[in-house]
Amino acid sequence: MAPRTPIPIVSVDPSKRPLEQKQPLHNRWHPEIPPVGEVKEGDLFRVETIDWTAGQIKDSDTAEDMKAVDLTQVHYLSGPIRCCDERGVPAKPGDILTVEILNLGPLAGDEWGFCGVFDRDNGGGFLTDHFPDASKAIWDFDGIYCTSRHIPGVRFAGITHPGLIGTAPSAELLKIWNDRERGLHDADPDSVTLASCLHTRPMAQPPNPSGACLGKIGQGPDWDRIAFEAARTIPGRENGGNCDIKNLTRGSKVHFPVFVEGANLSMGDMHFSQGDGEVSFCGAIEMSGWLELKISIIRGGMEEYLTPMGPTKLHVNPIFEISPLQPMYSEWLVFEGISVDERGRQHYLDASVAYKRAVLNCIDYLSKFGYSKQQVYMLLSCCPCEGRISGIVDIPNACATLAIPVAIFDQDIRPNKTGLPVGPRLVSKGQAPTARYTGSLETFQNPATKAPGT
Amino acid sequence: MAPRTPIPIVSVDPSKRPLEQKQPLHNRWHPEIPPVGEVKEGDLFRVETIDWTAGQIKDSDTAEDMKAVDLTQVHYLSGPIRCCDERGVPAKPGDILTVEILNLGPLAGDEWGFCGVFDRDNGGGFLTDHFPDASKAIWDFDGIYCTSRHIPGVRFAGITHPGLIGTAPSAELLKIWNDRERGLHDADPDSVTLASCLHTRPMAQPPNPSGACLGKIGQGPDWDRIAFEAARTIPGRENGGNCDIKNLTRGSKVHFPVFVEGANLSMGDMHFSQGDGEVSFCGAIEMSGWLELKISIIRGGMEEYLTPMGPTKLHVNPIFEISPLQPMYSEWLVFEGISVDERGRQHYLDASVAYKRAVLNCIDYLSKFGYSKQQVYMLLSCCPCEGRISGIVDIPNACATLAIPVAIFDQDIRPNKTGLPVGPRLVSKGQAPTARYTGSLETFQNPATKAPGT
Amino acid sequence: MAPRTPIPIVSVDPSKRPLEQKQPLHNRWHPEIPPVGEVKEGDLFRVETIDWTAGQIKDSDTAEDMKAVDLTQVHYLSGPIRCCDERGVPAKPGDILTVEILNLGPLAGDEWGFCGVFDRDNGGGFLTDHFPDASKAIWDFDGIYCTSRHIPGVRFAGITHPGLIGTAPSAELLKIWNDRERGLHDADPDSVTLASCLHTRPMAQPPNPSGACLGKIGQGPDWDRIAFEAARTIPGRENGGNCDIKNLTRGSKVHFPVFVEGANLSMGDMHFSQGDGEVSFCGAIEMSGWLELKISIIRGGMEEYLTPMGPTKLHVNPIFEISPLQPMYSEWLVFEGISVDERGRQHYLDASVAYKRAVLNCIDYLSKFGYSKQQVYMLLSCCPCEGRISGIVDIPNACATLAIPVAIFDQDIRPNKTGLPVGPRLVSKGQAPTARYTGSLETFQNPATKAPGT
Amino acid sequence: MAPRTPIPIVSVDPSKRPLEQKQPLHNRWHPEIPPVGEVKEGDLFRVETIDWTAGQIKDSDTAEDMKAVDLTQVHYLSGPIRCCDERGVPAKPGDILTVEILNLGPLAGDEWGFCGVFDRDNGGGFLTDHFPDASKAIWDFDGIYCTSRHIPGVRFAGITHPGLIGTAPSAELLKIWNDRERGLHDADPDSVTLASCLHTRPMAQPPNPSGACLGKIGQGPDWDRIAFEAARTIPGRENGGNCDIKNLTRGSKVHFPVFVEGANLSMGDMHFSQGDGEVSFCGAIEMSGWLELKISIIRGGMEEYLTPMGPTKLHVNPIFEISPLQPMYSEWLVFEGISVDERGRQHYLDASVAYKRAVLNCIDYLSKFGYSKQQVYMLLSCCPCEGRISGIVDIPNACATLAIPVAIFDQDIRPNKTGLPVGPRLVSKGQAPTARYTGSLETFQNPATKAPGT
Repeated sequence: MAPRTPIPIVSVDPSKRPLEQKQPLHNRWHPEIPPVGEVKEGDLFRVETIDWTAGQIKDSDTAEDMKAVDLTQVHYLSGPIRCCDERGVPAKPGDILTVEILNLGPLAGDEWGFCGVFDRDNGGGFLTDHFPDASKAIWDFDGIYCTSRHIPGVRFAGITHPGLIGTAPSAELLKIWNDRERGLHDADPDSVTLASCLHTRPMAQPPNPSGACLGKIGQGPDWDRIAFEAARTIPGRENGGNCDIKNLTRGSKVHFPVFVEGANLSMGDMHFSQGDGEVSFCGAIEMSGWLELKISIIRGGMEEYLTPMGPTKLHVNPIFEISPLQPMYSEWLVFEGISVDERGRQHYLDASVAYKRAVLNCIDYLSKFGYSKQQVYMLLSCCPCEGRISGIVDIPNACATLAIPVAIFDQDIRPNKTGLPVGPRLVSKGQAPTARYTGSLETFQNPATKAPGT
Repeated sequence: MAPRTPIPIVSVDPSKRPLEQKQPLHNRWHPEIPPVGEVKEGDLFRVETIDWTAGQIKDSDTAEDMKAVDLTQVHYLSGPIRCCDERGVPAKPGDILTVEILNLGPLAGDEWGFCGVFDRDNGGGFLTDHFPDASKAIWDFDGIYCTSRHIPGVRFAGITHPGLIGTAPSAELLKIWNDRERGLHDADPDSVTLASCLHTRPMAQPPNPSGACLGKIGQGPDWDRIAFEAARTIPGRENGGNCDIKNLTRGSKVHFPVFVEGANLSMGDMHFSQGDGEVSFCGAIEMSGWLELKISIIRGGMEEYLTPMGPTKLHVNPIFEISPLQPMYSEWLVFEGISVDERGRQHYLDASVAYKRAVLNCIDYLSKFGYSKQQVYMLLSCCPCEGRISGIVDIPNACATLAIPVAIFDQDIRPNKTGLPVGPRLVSKGQAPTARYTGSLETFQNPATKAPGT
Repeated sequence: MAPRTPIPIVSVDPSKRPLEQKQPLHNRWHPEIPPVGEVKEGDLFRVETIDWTAGQIKDSDTAEDMKAVDLTQVHYLSGPIRCCDERGVPAKPGDILTVEILNLGPLAGDEWGFCGVFDRDNGGGFLTDHFPDASKAIWDFDGIYCTSRHIPGVRFAGITHPGLIGTAPSAELLKIWNDRERGLHDADPDSVTLASCLHTRPMAQPPNPSGACLGKIGQGPDWDRIAFEAARTIPGRENGGNCDIKNLTRGSKVHFPVFVEGANLSMGDMHFSQGDGEVSFCGAIEMSGWLELKISIIRGGMEEYLTPMGPTKLHVNPIFEISPLQPMYSEWLVFEGISVDERGRQHYLDASVAYKRAVLNCIDYLSKFGYSKQQVYMLLSCCPCEGRISGIVDIPNACATLAIPVAIFDQDIRPNKTGLPVGPRLVSKGQAPTARYTGSLETFQNPATKAPGT
Repeated sequence: MAPRTPIPIVSVDPSKRPLEQKQPLHNRWHPEIPPVGEVKEGDLFRVETIDWTAGQIKDSDTAEDMKAVDLTQVHYLSGPIRCCDERGVPAKPGDILTVEILNLGPLAGDEWGFCGVFDRDNGGGFLTDHFPDASKAIWDFDGIYCTSRHIPGVRFAGITHPGLIGTAPSAELLKIWNDRERGLHDADPDSVTLASCLHTRPMAQPPNPSGACLGKIGQGPDWDRIAFEAARTIPGRENGGNCDIKNLTRGSKVHFPVFVEGANLSMGDMHFSQGDGEVSFCGAIEMSGWLELKISIIRGGMEEYLTPMGPTKLHVNPIFEISPLQPMYSEWLVFEGISVDERGRQHYLDASVAYKRAVLNCIDYLSKFGYSKQQVYMLLSCCPCEGRISGIVDIPNACATLAIPVAIFDQDIRPNKTGLPVGPRLVSKGQAPTARYTGSLETFQNPATKAPGT
């Protein structure tokens, strides 16, 4: 018998541009994007991916590339892969496609990653009103560990995972997506309560032919039609997609709903490591990478296991089995936020506001140990921190918590009677590069001094 | 030397009513409630607490007590405890009070607990519009494990913790609380976006003399004034309070801000076990209990470590160090929700809606294995499940996840090719008792069939 | 329904002497020692135990009590307990008795423990030739944590467990024990290879009426006969007994063979914490304590599950299921030993010698950080260190390892480029009390300089 | 800056024979074997290794290759690698060489492994007297998981590690090894107590030019001399070597003593997975593989940290820091053995005998679930089971335990009231291939029936 070497299904060359890859990539969801390969139940196969921006961000010490990033292009995905059972019969709508992630890692010869903050006017992030400038940190990989010259004094093992993996939507599901998101896009942001307290960012991104990459679909009327219909890959949706579950590492399984014949599985956006919430948006340590996978099909599994809802029976979410191989951190420091915003305004059981407060509390705290706040913001986006919804019923306050493992720092960051380190900082301050910001820079140092409502 | 037996600071008799206890209890936050005891740094001391409802809920097979519960009384707390340094100098405003939880458990002779669902018109819960009826489950404790005759087929070790622990607010902080919450209370629910998509419940509970219990403060004008001012204990706030952090078990530490001289530490609402979010509101396994504690004081620690904000420098949250002793579950099943509600409406990066979807997805799923949905709703409130904010930046969808340990079930609840158990259910269905519901019972079986906006 | 309060089966008063206890204790194994109580399947019951020496060792700063300890008395056990099924039919020889340990802890009012080293001439220990003097360390309990004034700078959570738990032997099994151990006792120590390289200690302890305590058996001819027959409790044997499995904590199960009607379960020797191997013999943190237990019976389980061997079908060992609740230590320092002794002599795949070397290597190493070697010897006996047989086939060297969790120390004990702490020791050296040693003190500082064979 | 791609230091082609490799391999320890490459502190470098037998064992369904294996050749190692500090100054005798294992895995295109039992007359193993026949199991790798067609019904994630890694001995240390082991080799086996109760196997293997492979040393008088002096690689020794520490996986560090200039680090014998003890000798899942490594040097570290002993100050052992990334198994079944052998004879505190009993107890037990005993013997050699020295002081019995994670089986292997599976076996029995055994086959089915001493 032959060794069980994974069958290469998608191969990439991260030094080449997306259109130059041997197998075409795609960066939109659409049922008509044709498969680039086929796998059977029981096959052990390998998929390679380029980084989500297709090389727009460089291993450099400036954040100008972050500031200027073209987000109409993201995320570049490998696939679709047509999925069949052992006899070659494809997965059918209504089935479950179970995908097992057996191993993964960065591509050989490309062992580095980046995380960063987008400019408020070009992408933004969870705390974009507090950190409006673009910035960036480059991470070097030492096997399973990573360090950054831009955020010194921390080192951790990555819980490496694909940020984005999903099946293709049917035409009917695609229409549902476009309809519901367009409504939000067209809304007046001021009328959306949560947006006003979270940040000034776009509400949703409807289909946009600019920057679209549609795999094997060549130029022509089909391309135009599909590019105008195809959904952006930014949000997670019924098909999985950009769900950013940070523990979806080697040894995990995902049970996806199948909406089109063959399931048309795609993936990309590999993360060397990510914190729960991926708060800075370009928050995980982004990289190119490879995955070793197996699939199996549960016939009729959507109805059996997933409870599709709505008149169309398409409202459904995947189920995940995360890996038993997780790093064991014994000691955590936990920051809490409640749903009272930084201007002192009361919100009603709002976990997003509460989590924002927990993150800001943690940034304030860690910045006392020699880091700039921007460094901590990026660190919380990419290190293995856990974001929890601790209480969601105690009117009027939701309580969210952010737990950070103490062991990733080279100093003891716990409160103690001796007080903070004094004199020369324990951390020799690296300086995360920041793009020159040309907009009007608001200061959020002391937001509470502002009049409510401004 | 003497053995290090904990010093009894507060003792209770759970068979007696709150006012009959040897040391008076309290169920409101107010700076003028006098301490009932004093501890010094280094003391190992013991505090006993009654259950949060003071015995209103019985070990019985009817949920009528749940339906009729008087929530003006909750939560009954033990304390306040005046906290001093080794020389007897009390903690001062601006200090940090570090409380270490060294051991805890149910009171001997009272080894049982309850969880339940409140009636929609009397308390409600996270899913109150889906589960409007009161119901209840009684849990028996076998050492560190618990089982319920009302939810058979599950057994788990409790991560026992105090649901509510905090320091007393100053008068200034109390006024801030009352002002900001009253605004919400007075608001038109229809104008609060989040409330309309979460559930029909009260927005906030302002001070209410009815049911108030104020410790050593006797009847008289002071009592009246304080009862009208004192804050309810329902929400977690700057002083900690009802933060419901489920991992705050033996071996944990909390760093609290100090607002009044002596800190005036109070605690109660012991939980044998709780799931992240405590979704059914009376969701944890509620019990009487005891704690062994130590304190220490970090002088000036609020400014040093906690970054108080706002003009008053009172906006602040505690920091927690959770215990290295946690149960090791190697296998988890993870349910996802995105911020699209069950009517198909799109919400903007709303973690509360996303978590609601994750919980509903899990309830639908587990109900296929022989449980009623109400049983699962209660189970998710009290078992050691984890609620995560996985993605909070991918416009327009927040992604929240609910992870449940597979090992707590006596059947394998993972999806598989064989399909669900058929014929006689594997679980001999217990029946969680439900109070007769006299209101108009809406059916939410298929909410998506409703017209949006209804 | 009543709360599930454990039924008290054995209660003790640690301030009283063994013969003064309400229920008689015993310190020998014999089938005729009558039960002191009875439990049924499904009962939740409580057993209290005194410390294994019955109060001979005091909470003091001298080791004279260690030196003078009367080891003919140990271990004082609570029981025997007659075990029956739900209908009251007792366990029968050939059954399995499954005992679940649901909770445990130190007795209220007696929250302290001791570990120590016995004098070489009165008990000794694994390294008795290296540490011939008696010494002692007292441990204070802070809830689940312990510290010692005699070994400062360490603090850890106990994995509390009964050091000794087992069923009563039948007369036939007892005879097998006595026969096989008497052979060893009578042997010339010099003819026993392993003994000569391990240490100068007694080979075995045959039955000894001196110090015997036989429960309900009163003075008379029966007492004399039984005292001359009854087995000592020192070694673990077919019935479980003194197996010293350090992870047998709350949440564990033991499947015991049953040799006599009713199983006659006894237990004692509670350990607040122990290291694998319990190397100093009085090595665990010894204490009085309580256990909450449940039993069940697998009829005919010995043949079904345990494979009894030999002509008598009595050679058998219990099976254990350890608890899922263990402390999570993420970082360990691991010391290795191979089966070459400290005089440079080669032994053949000898795991005992290899483990001795691993322990001595660890003692040498940790003594560089401010501890005396005797302090480390005691620490390794009682802290949650793991002793592994890593390689047992690579002729001629067995390889054993000792892993110690880094987090129990208040300094970083890992090797690094900066070197050891200099100047004033980081650890303010406590001094473990040592008994004045009156024998001839050999020095083993540099054993390799001795001629082989001396 | 360039991505941090590991520098290739040793590359192999597993399809070629050892002498055909680009860089010569070696299978003996000797100070004069010249380095094949050089690394500096801070370099991230890659080493590839062939399997320890250099391809003698095939991916087939016969064990004839196991039976006929030429053990004079093992283990084939990659290296030596000369290790220098950042300025290029080599490590010196007396230094510590710290090696960090940052990542590792099977070679691409060679993703399979084998474990097996050697014939009693050609290698044998821990239980060779019980399992005298050669047998074999082939394992397929699915990413981090493995399965075997020869041992169906189990699947586990590998804790992959190098079985053998070490620095070169000095001439002085080599002489010590040869002297002490030759003594054992020349001894009468009957005079070695432990050997007689363990098994009939060679006592030690002195230097043997037959099969020797000496790296860059070409044929000639030097080759002959060195081949007659060079130590076999079978046992672990002062330089590390074949220490078989199963948790030495990605994220681990080893602090090695340095005996020759440049340290001359070698490694090989990659294990996909191994159980503590590696009981069947060819027990781990053996494979070719790759490692990503970094080194650093602690000048003078041997004296500072390692306590070298003896007149030569060369008796020393490495120190290990195992990885925080370990699989989390929450449930274990633990088998115990005491130092009474299967003929009922009493041994004195003998951990090797006790562990042998624990292993035999576990084999007996698991064979009730549909496996042959030989299958279980191999499984315990290679799955992530833990071997502990639980008690080593309770005269006369050592107590050793073997803990096996319940989750690796596809059936529940815990004892229960229902009893063993009946009728058609739950496990469809694979058949591990066994070589035809031509020697005289003793039966050890019921060893206790034999007269002691035979």
